[in-house]
Amino acid sequence: MTVSHMVVVDLESGEVVEGRLAPSSNLLTHLALYQAFPQIGGVVHTHSRFATAFAQAGRGILPLGTTHADYFYGEIPCTRELTPAEISGAYEIEMGAVIVERFTDLDPKSIPGALVHGHGPFTWGRDATGAVQNAAALEEIACMATLTLSLAPDTPPIGDALLARHYLRKHGPRSYYGQT
Amino acid sequence: MTVSHMVVVDLESGEVVEGRLAPSSNLLTHLALYQAFPQIGGVVHTHSRFATAFAQAGRGILPLGTTHADYFYGEIPCTRELTPAEISGAYEIEMGAVIVERFTDLDPKSIPGALVHGHGPFTWGRDATGAVQNAAALEEIACMATLTLSLAPDTPPIGDALLARHYLRKHGPRSYYGQT
Amino acid sequence: MTVSHMVVVDLESGEVVEGRLAPSSNLLTHLALYQAFPQIGGVVHTHSRFATAFAQAGRGILPLGTTHADYFYGEIPCTRELTPAEISGAYEIEMGAVIVERFTDLDPKSIPGALVHGHGPFTWGRDATGAVQNAAALEEIACMATLTLSLAPDTPPIGDALLARHYLRKHGPRSYYGQT
Amino acid sequence: MTVSHMVVVDLESGEVVEGRLAPSSNLLTHLALYQAFPQIGGVVHTHSRFATAFAQAGRGILPLGTTHADYFYGEIPCTRELTPAEISGAYEIEMGAVIVERFTDLDPKSIPGALVHGHGPFTWGRDATGAVQNAAALEEIACMATLTLSLAPDTPPIGDALLARHYLRKHGPRSYYGQT
Repeated sequence: MTVSHMVVVDLESGEVVEGRLAPSSNLLTHLALYQAFPQIGGVVHTHSRFATAFAQAGRGILPLGTTHADYFYGEIPCTRELTPAEISGAYEIEMGAVIVERFTDLDPKSIPGALVHGHGPFTWGRDATGAVQNAAALEEIACMATLTLSLAPDTPPIGDALLARHYLRKHGPRSYYGQT
Repeated sequence: MTVSHMVVVDLESGEVVEGRLAPSSNLLTHLALYQAFPQIGGVVHTHSRFATAFAQAGRGILPLGTTHADYFYGEIPCTRELTPAEISGAYEIEMGAVIVERFTDLDPKSIPGALVHGHGPFTWGRDATGAVQNAAALEEIACMATLTLSLAPDTPPIGDALLARHYLRKHGPRSYYGQT
Repeated sequence: MTVSHMVVVDLESGEVVEGRLAPSSNLLTHLALYQAFPQIGGVVHTHSRFATAFAQAGRGILPLGTTHADYFYGEIPCTRELTPAEISGAYEIEMGAVIVERFTDLDPKSIPGALVHGHGPFTWGRDATGAVQNAAALEEIACMATLTLSLAPDTPPIGDALLARHYLRKHGPRSYYGQT
Repeated sequence: MTVSHMVVVDLESGEVVEGRLAPSSNLLTHLALYQAFPQIGGVVHTHSRFATAFAQAGRGILPLGTTHADYFYGEIPCTRELTPAEISGAYEIEMGAVIVERFTDLDPKSIPGALVHGHGPFTWGRDATGAVQNAAALEEIACMATLTLSLAPDTPPIGDALLARHYLRKHGPRSYYGQT
């Protein structure tokens, strides 16, 4: 992919502003997320193996360790299934809508990603780089969770204190993790 | 492999038309598929790990997610076992025949691949490139299915509406997926 | 990472002696290990996939084969969970303390690593190179143990004679393994 | 590894004939195999992940598909455990002896490899290249068997007719597999 493959679209209407190709087929899903979560500046969708396996199993990923807590402040949620009517209708818009619906009581800033049931992961971030980093972290977390559950299927999530300590030492005003 | 390793054969008789080496030992299986499925222009056979595991387990791969639906419009079927008589007889021809038999009520255009019981996957396509892409997609789908079943052994296939939406947005006259 | 990213700290106080960046956020865990295990000259912490899965499952790794015995003279232990008070307090120091506590009746020289419950592996060695080698060996051992347990969940550890033979032919005064 | 790391030893006595380093610590195991199986010209020992997992589980690898049958004409056997006396005694010689013992009723030419219980795989071949190829094939076969058993734990071995057809079309006087 080179710059000439990039397409600039209007964030509200989705109309192409610059570029010679069509935008992503999932453009309307991305727009739904940008509109519902105004603090984000990048959205990434992959079919990475382990995260997709959780989406196909219809399961969210519980925080089983501190790697998870370093990036996601709680369960990485899985959406409900779309209804046949939603699927036959404005499918890509509805896919964004079930993600947004799943975040009714969740904070998209501290849980920067979700699994679409039967499909795969979407992640987001402050900018495109952050969204890509979260996609990579999600896949690694999903891999570790799969291995953990193969060793001990009933592994409980880590406690709230450990979850908070790891998330908050990397994120937010009192973070102290890292070398700079 | 270089061009000098390629062998051109007659599509009906299997006789070598050009090239200095012998054709693939599985030539007659390939010819059986070309003859039964006249719309295809390429056949690929691999022993890729995850697809072969399903073949060894004697299990077809149900559509557990949209990655599957993007390439295969339904279960990727597994053939029956060959009989001892078929194995001792014209083995490579019979291997093609059980694939063709398995497609009696299936459309090889929308399900461009099968698993030979106890052996491994064959895929096909409009041309050689398409057949290779389907072989790679099949392996990725088989990997995701293996992971999904390790998380949730009873995962049901996705619904018909989602299967159709994904397959048909990429294939056929009303497809709209992609950037060109 | 280049030399300019390296930071020299005082081994007792942890204060920066040389270098322009902050030391690792887990500095105090490392210092706790250096102080408790005076014979070691290097500590490594990773979130490698398979070792972390055992840590998340809260399970030590039993010696299931000679690969394990070549590097670790017995179970690779998993610590207890930290208490909420330890986590909210001097977390990084307490993480070192639970490792040291776990080694009350173990020899850190012949078992050069541990899993921190819900977190991941720490390994150590005579020097930095040895600690890195032990981290790599631990991950390979954890991978093999995961695969073994998927084939046979009740695999017992190897016997004491085999454990001793392999460990002692590579380590200690009567070692004879290797080409030099 | 370069040529200067290679060591030439006498095939009967094991004494170094040429080279400046010590021979492999497992030299005496290799010699036991060369002496018992006079038709072989190369022995390879690895700790490859999947084959080692079967050895650690104490399980032979049944022929679950044609990939197996292309290289091994039957189960890849696992030895019994060595006794404490064998382990404390001439360990490396005894390791060769249990492999040879396991082949009392097996043909090392058509089954060119074995798993040492709790340790890992040894393979052999007409020459060093053949032994390496068999080591690589064994690892791939072990991987596929692991995946197959995770999908269907009770998968039976393929039938005798399929096993024979695949082995004999690649090996022996009536082989016809391959392009030359």
